[in-house]
Amino acid sequence: MSINGTTAAPVDVPRGLAGVVVTDTRLGDVRGREGFYHYRQYSAVELAQTRGFEDVWHLMIHGELPDAARSAAFAARTATLRRLPDDVRAALPVIARAGALSGPLAGLRSALSLFGASQGFRPVYDIDDERRREDTLAATAVVPTLLTALHRLGEGLEPVEPRDDLSYAANYLYMLRGSEPDPAHARAVEQYLISTIDHGFNASTFTARVITSTGADVAACLVGAVGALSGPLHGGAPSRALDTLDAIGTRDRIDGWIRERVLAGDRIMGFGHPVYRTEDPRSRMLRGIAQRFGGPMVEFAVEVERRVEAILAELKPGRELHTNVEFYAGVVMELCGLPRAMFTPTFAAARVVGWSANILEQARDSKIIRPAARYVGPTAPVPVPVMP
Amino acid sequence: MSINGTTAAPVDVPRGLAGVVVTDTRLGDVRGREGFYHYRQYSAVELAQTRGFEDVWHLMIHGELPDAARSAAFAARTATLRRLPDDVRAALPVIARAGALSGPLAGLRSALSLFGASQGFRPVYDIDDERRREDTLAATAVVPTLLTALHRLGEGLEPVEPRDDLSYAANYLYMLRGSEPDPAHARAVEQYLISTIDHGFNASTFTARVITSTGADVAACLVGAVGALSGPLHGGAPSRALDTLDAIGTRDRIDGWIRERVLAGDRIMGFGHPVYRTEDPRSRMLRGIAQRFGGPMVEFAVEVERRVEAILAELKPGRELHTNVEFYAGVVMELCGLPRAMFTPTFAAARVVGWSANILEQARDSKIIRPAARYVGPTAPVPVPVMP
Repeated sequence: MSINGTTAAPVDVPRGLAGVVVTDTRLGDVRGREGFYHYRQYSAVELAQTRGFEDVWHLMIHGELPDAARSAAFAARTATLRRLPDDVRAALPVIARAGALSGPLAGLRSALSLFGASQGFRPVYDIDDERRREDTLAATAVVPTLLTALHRLGEGLEPVEPRDDLSYAANYLYMLRGSEPDPAHARAVEQYLISTIDHGFNASTFTARVITSTGADVAACLVGAVGALSGPLHGGAPSRALDTLDAIGTRDRIDGWIRERVLAGDRIMGFGHPVYRTEDPRSRMLRGIAQRFGGPMVEFAVEVERRVEAILAELKPGRELHTNVEFYAGVVMELCGLPRAMFTPTFAAARVVGWSANILEQARDSKIIRPAARYVGPTAPVPVPVMP
Repeated sequence: MSINGTTAAPVDVPRGLAGVVVTDTRLGDVRGREGFYHYRQYSAVELAQTRGFEDVWHLMIHGELPDAARSAAFAARTATLRRLPDDVRAALPVIARAGALSGPLAGLRSALSLFGASQGFRPVYDIDDERRREDTLAATAVVPTLLTALHRLGEGLEPVEPRDDLSYAANYLYMLRGSEPDPAHARAVEQYLISTIDHGFNASTFTARVITSTGADVAACLVGAVGALSGPLHGGAPSRALDTLDAIGTRDRIDGWIRERVLAGDRIMGFGHPVYRTEDPRSRMLRGIAQRFGGPMVEFAVEVERRVEAILAELKPGRELHTNVEFYAGVVMELCGLPRAMFTPTFAAARVVGWSANILEQARDSKIIRPAARYVGPTAPVPVPVMP
């Protein structure tokens, strides 16, 4: 037996690399058993409750929370980076048309790739840490502009130019709808964005780091991450959780619907997480935000959550199953007027900061990530048959 | 200590996942100590010497070499897939302009992303194996069209429409230059392409498989792989090996130049490989091809190779260092009239078949690849400071 593509001794590990430690990180951690996660040394939920998106972006990229002066300067500077170069803007209608079939993340993938090239991003190993950071800031700042422009073009509307007097979150909603958002909506979306900036070593973050480890440019790394996020096993679901609420429809149907699913062993969208064994802290925070808005949809969602937990306790005792981030994220985004097609793209508009921080951390390493595969096919070589 | 993003027990492994077995594969293997590699059960070099590119493409994608009838049918069918949709063609000038700064692989990244979206590629987990295969064929067939169109646009020339009466390799050279290639050049390039279709679990192949494991569409997987290939630690070097020959310049300078580099401990481009401990079998084959063409550049390259090995044996006895695939690949591509800027893109035009085969194999698995990181920052949580 031989191990593909390496001279190192083969190391057998759990499937899907579960638990395999690829790197040390100072960016944060998820403590699944405690229902707690943090960005650097701060609780992510506490950051979402007390700070603006730009401050947490600064924390992730620069390694520390900014003081008041730095906070204002960072917000002002990143706001000036929101406008698109003419070439990229000119290509958006074609990208929007093409993306109509494969979805908004396919559009972001193309547009962000083009943007990076238009800026002349260079291999991360050929530039210094400061230049890399600038590249990540430029790429992140245009993500909301690209996403909203592509969405509006897909709807037959003109893109809305970014404003640099609004926060990242408020400007995102503004560009999406063409009117200034209700401050409560902007803040709720901002808290959602902060809470999803980073979350352990998920597949898109890992993708970004693998590409970074080859020394590729920041756009190559981010575009790969967007691709991974577009996979249904990864980023594809906040709108599906709402579809669950729609499918149930009315209060009197909740129990019947849930019992049927649980007895059939079907997955219930919006419930369950590979890491958390307790309540997902993001879910708890987003439920609080939703309940501050209140209204029938929120009450219905809370009731569905309550009944799922109760029915599971009855039918599958001992099995812990809680709402995940998708469930109340969907509710909050719907309350704030985000169209469902934009739920996963909105997630991308937050996660791009996490990817950026991971790219910067990985780029300070210089070791390519190059694992191995085990050949299990027929013994080679067999002579190549002569074409008859 | 806590392990980021997983409930699995932490597994410590060598840096860069060296030797870590991510998956079983039936696609092939690299036996570094023997200087041998194979695609499925056949020697890759023997395939390059006896078959056409399309046959080996068929082998990788369908799992077996085609008979004569299937070979003709596969070649004819994939040839019809070379033409670009109008939307993609219309976007190429913008992509070419933008890519001028970040290089041809950044252009391919954007164009292939757009192409996939224009075809409405769907998540691999939402479609069957047959549909996935079709998506990989469509994407692979346009790679030469995209690369040559972007290159010509960058040179101020009109793209050349593909011809479906030429082989993959001959049509590539035809689109690049606008005239039918010398059959000997087409065959040499074809043999180079076959020899670089796949080669173990390199970083771009691994990237493609990580993205596939999220269920993302074929374009997302390929675009991530192109991004990884654009990293200087991975795909960036066949032209640098030629730059070495240029830098040495003349025969009388060979020994002095090499001694200086070896004594300074500098890397000599075109020499050394992380896997092979003996001669790189691709290098041996490509040297043979180059020597069939003959001429002063080939003689000079052979002399440089001979002197590097001799001087190393003298100055660093026991250290095995041989030419890698880049060295004679550069020589062969230069002989066949490929511009140096197209060396790595040409590599991509071959490797896209290997990525495709890996995507198809990974898509039959259903386990997300999601490793872990170890948090080594300050103990969390620390209270979030109030903004002063």
